[in-house]
Amino acid sequence: MVDTLTATTDVTTPPCNDATRWVRRVRLVPPSLADNTADADRLIRALQPQTGGHFIEIPLSLLQDLPGRLRQADYRVDCLLIEDRGHHLLTHVAAAAADAPLAGLAVDLGTTRIAAQLVDLRNGQSLAEAAVDNPQLTVGPDVLVRIHHSQSPQGRAALQRQAAEGINRAVTDLCAQTALTPDAIALMVVAGNTAMTHLLLGLDARWLIREPYIPAANQPGMIRARDLGIAIHNRARILVFPNVGSYFGGDLIAGILYAGLHRRSDTAILVDVGTNAEVVLGNRDWMIACAGAAGPALEGGMSRMGMLAGPGVIDRVRIGPAGDLRLGTIGNEAPRGICGSGVIDLAAQLFRNGWVDIRGRLLPERCHGRCREVDGQLHLDLVAAADAANGETLSIGQADLDSLMRSKAAMYTILETLTGQVGLTPEQLTTFYVAGTFGCFIDPESAVTIGMLPDLPRERYHALGNSALGGAVRLLSDTGAQAEIRQIQANITYLELNVNQDFMNRFSAAKFLPHTDRQRFPSIPSTAGNDA
Amino acid sequence: MVDTLTATTDVTTPPCNDATRWVRRVRLVPPSLADNTADADRLIRALQPQTGGHFIEIPLSLLQDLPGRLRQADYRVDCLLIEDRGHHLLTHVAAAAADAPLAGLAVDLGTTRIAAQLVDLRNGQSLAEAAVDNPQLTVGPDVLVRIHHSQSPQGRAALQRQAAEGINRAVTDLCAQTALTPDAIALMVVAGNTAMTHLLLGLDARWLIREPYIPAANQPGMIRARDLGIAIHNRARILVFPNVGSYFGGDLIAGILYAGLHRRSDTAILVDVGTNAEVVLGNRDWMIACAGAAGPALEGGMSRMGMLAGPGVIDRVRIGPAGDLRLGTIGNEAPRGICGSGVIDLAAQLFRNGWVDIRGRLLPERCHGRCREVDGQLHLDLVAAADAANGETLSIGQADLDSLMRSKAAMYTILETLTGQVGLTPEQLTTFYVAGTFGCFIDPESAVTIGMLPDLPRERYHALGNSALGGAVRLLSDTGAQAEIRQIQANITYLELNVNQDFMNRFSAAKFLPHTDRQRFPSIPSTAGNDA
Repeated sequence: MVDTLTATTDVTTPPCNDATRWVRRVRLVPPSLADNTADADRLIRALQPQTGGHFIEIPLSLLQDLPGRLRQADYRVDCLLIEDRGHHLLTHVAAAAADAPLAGLAVDLGTTRIAAQLVDLRNGQSLAEAAVDNPQLTVGPDVLVRIHHSQSPQGRAALQRQAAEGINRAVTDLCAQTALTPDAIALMVVAGNTAMTHLLLGLDARWLIREPYIPAANQPGMIRARDLGIAIHNRARILVFPNVGSYFGGDLIAGILYAGLHRRSDTAILVDVGTNAEVVLGNRDWMIACAGAAGPALEGGMSRMGMLAGPGVIDRVRIGPAGDLRLGTIGNEAPRGICGSGVIDLAAQLFRNGWVDIRGRLLPERCHGRCREVDGQLHLDLVAAADAANGETLSIGQADLDSLMRSKAAMYTILETLTGQVGLTPEQLTTFYVAGTFGCFIDPESAVTIGMLPDLPRERYHALGNSALGGAVRLLSDTGAQAEIRQIQANITYLELNVNQDFMNRFSAAKFLPHTDRQRFPSIPSTAGNDA
Repeated sequence: MVDTLTATTDVTTPPCNDATRWVRRVRLVPPSLADNTADADRLIRALQPQTGGHFIEIPLSLLQDLPGRLRQADYRVDCLLIEDRGHHLLTHVAAAAADAPLAGLAVDLGTTRIAAQLVDLRNGQSLAEAAVDNPQLTVGPDVLVRIHHSQSPQGRAALQRQAAEGINRAVTDLCAQTALTPDAIALMVVAGNTAMTHLLLGLDARWLIREPYIPAANQPGMIRARDLGIAIHNRARILVFPNVGSYFGGDLIAGILYAGLHRRSDTAILVDVGTNAEVVLGNRDWMIACAGAAGPALEGGMSRMGMLAGPGVIDRVRIGPAGDLRLGTIGNEAPRGICGSGVIDLAAQLFRNGWVDIRGRLLPERCHGRCREVDGQLHLDLVAAADAANGETLSIGQADLDSLMRSKAAMYTILETLTGQVGLTPEQLTTFYVAGTFGCFIDPESAVTIGMLPDLPRERYHALGNSALGGAVRLLSDTGAQAEIRQIQANITYLELNVNQDFMNRFSAAKFLPHTDRQRFPSIPSTAGNDA
């Protein structure tokens, strides 16, 4: 199996130390007749230097038992202090010597997959990682169907419960791995696209998809986990990554945070090849972004391919000299499907070996007998029934390849358009971050081969893996990330793609392998592909 | 019946207008493609000029349905915005045209009695008033017993439930009077002494009564009504009047607010003759306070007399020329007990008519046959069995009168001590506010006659009635009162009474009617009383 880029990248993470951990240790002056300040006020007074003098709210359930806690701890305590736009909340107070961890839960709430990581809030260390399918898949695979479903009160409540249920399943898994109880989880951060965030919070989502496309909230603030039915500590709060708009969600903000785009002096680009193609271009001074869902080009997009990642999903494809398919699966298990990076690999290999023409159409006579027609459509068999996980032949249809051709053309056109907006060409970008769905790392070589990404020196490409989860974990290990998130949200300009004739012309030109203009892809051998 | 001072006083209430009401009306710019700000952010943007640019939190349950509310109201809405030390919370959004009232609930949480008033938050008008016994009376009549009871988790929970239950009963009464549902009550403010506040909130109260006497919290902040089991609107918040210390509670802060002591240029005094004797002296620049519970003099105090006010309770006593007792009762109902103002009236009349000596001892031969001995103690019959509400003779014992003598002596000594601390004599005070338990207005003439209050020209005395409830109502009709409350809390100095030999000497001198030093009470006829 060919080794490709993994998540070991040059993401520019700033140094993090105890001063920016979520848990702060303080020592109080014990009360006396000369200083009979109330317990709560005494604790607030000790913590206020860390909040710039701001008031600190203490939830009732903590306040009720505060006197005993302070005295038992001999006035030396670890405090979990959560802030949201100047509102400081103290949710946990534990004896400074306690060895029970205060854990944080990072969640990437994907449309198809929910990925989570447990972090020790005292030192920022990762404790465990888990992923589960999004239970909302039973309602529908795409966001549009779910938003329609959420328009009835029952539908909205059901989708909210499902999102919480998915997260609770991940929590169960994480707790089993670490022997912690859900009660040890004192803080959660979640990154998702705007629609998924709305559905998790039970917000009215109907106006997201109706002109002028208005979210209910872009910065939902600190949410109580128990208000969402998430079974972690009763007082745990949830910090939700903010959205920029209906089509630019917190998952992308988290990705930018993870990549460190907003800290760079040179201009870099981040593309997220998920259900939609999302692109952010910028540096520490400015950022511009757009998303493929804004244009009609990606409709259907790659979602038909089944982007689900998980054990047994094909994420790597090579064609051997004898026309044999060499497939890599997640966890090296028997194949049960294919994810985005697998499809991109497959298309690149089909093209390099001449199994498809430059328009991406299967050439049955070149496919070593793997082609057959099903319901009037050509299919390429990838895995024989005997070798597949579910005992059925695994194949990919021409319609799937056509869909990929549109997606990759849209991605390239968006990159061309966006860089053009700031007077650059893609070739001028020195750093190119490629994020992708959990567990699937896109091979830049393959993406360039099919003309999805520009033909840059390969070392400029950096695979980020699940950047939304990475950003969420970053926030759990560094309180300073909150200011960065606000800076990102404030600095970003969302560009509505103007899908005019010029865009459509460029899109049409990109619907070839790798492109009608071969000179743009000098590194791709001109022998690849055949004219049909 | 002699007419005495009522609650029509010269309390200095500042002007209040729509700008300081709790409900604010705003009109939003409707969303468009050119302004696709999220609904929540749009509303916050419109309200922020009223918060000095501070962030405004919107609770999840409101956020969830905000898009529909704004659109149905055509973007013209009435908002209930609650603030606590820079933390702004938006709990209600209703169409500006809605005629359903947004009501506020003011509560005086007394040790024996809970008084409440309903206020229309849109215009500050009072809608109804109610009072119920504090259900905690079943645990014990005084605060000390209840604090001991609260030291077990079950006891604490039971006392918390009882306090909430009492408030809920008052709410039921208020709703019946006004035909409103509890759901219409969107905000509650509560004033109580430090112990009562702790018991209502379920705070650990055990350290209030142990040296160095530390409250769990002096400023509990905004509490959710539903967290306390108070059955008003699900999102309603409770603002708790802050304490200054274990012996100086929010009820007194509310009393000062109501009297306007903190706005006066001249120095005035406020005495609250409840279960304890509490005194505040000051003006807009400084205030000093002390409470009788700090010294041993008031132990037992007037609580033995049954301070409960309510229909049928004797609050006025005069002795006619023929030795007949003329009793006034609350609501003119058949007598069932006597409250503080009634006992003070009685003692004054007994003294003026020579039924007691200058030490307050009953003189059986002067009592027109009303004296009899029960269990070795002299009793004075007030109401014959046939005339009493419960069919039993209503009488008062020598021990009760002795207790009053200690209480009145303590009050006088405290007044003497406190004014002395700032270099004044009581005679130099031009305004003297007298607050009392709900429904019982102390007659200054009687209080002066027995030497409880100094012999000032009577027009300097102003009866406040239930000043804690008055302060709570004031807060509901004027958001500006919050700043005043903070100012009062910050400006007040609580004086621990130094019960030394000098204090005890003055206390002993005051244990006569009206005082050993007759010259201090020139207006009281020297013919009153007999040397025993």
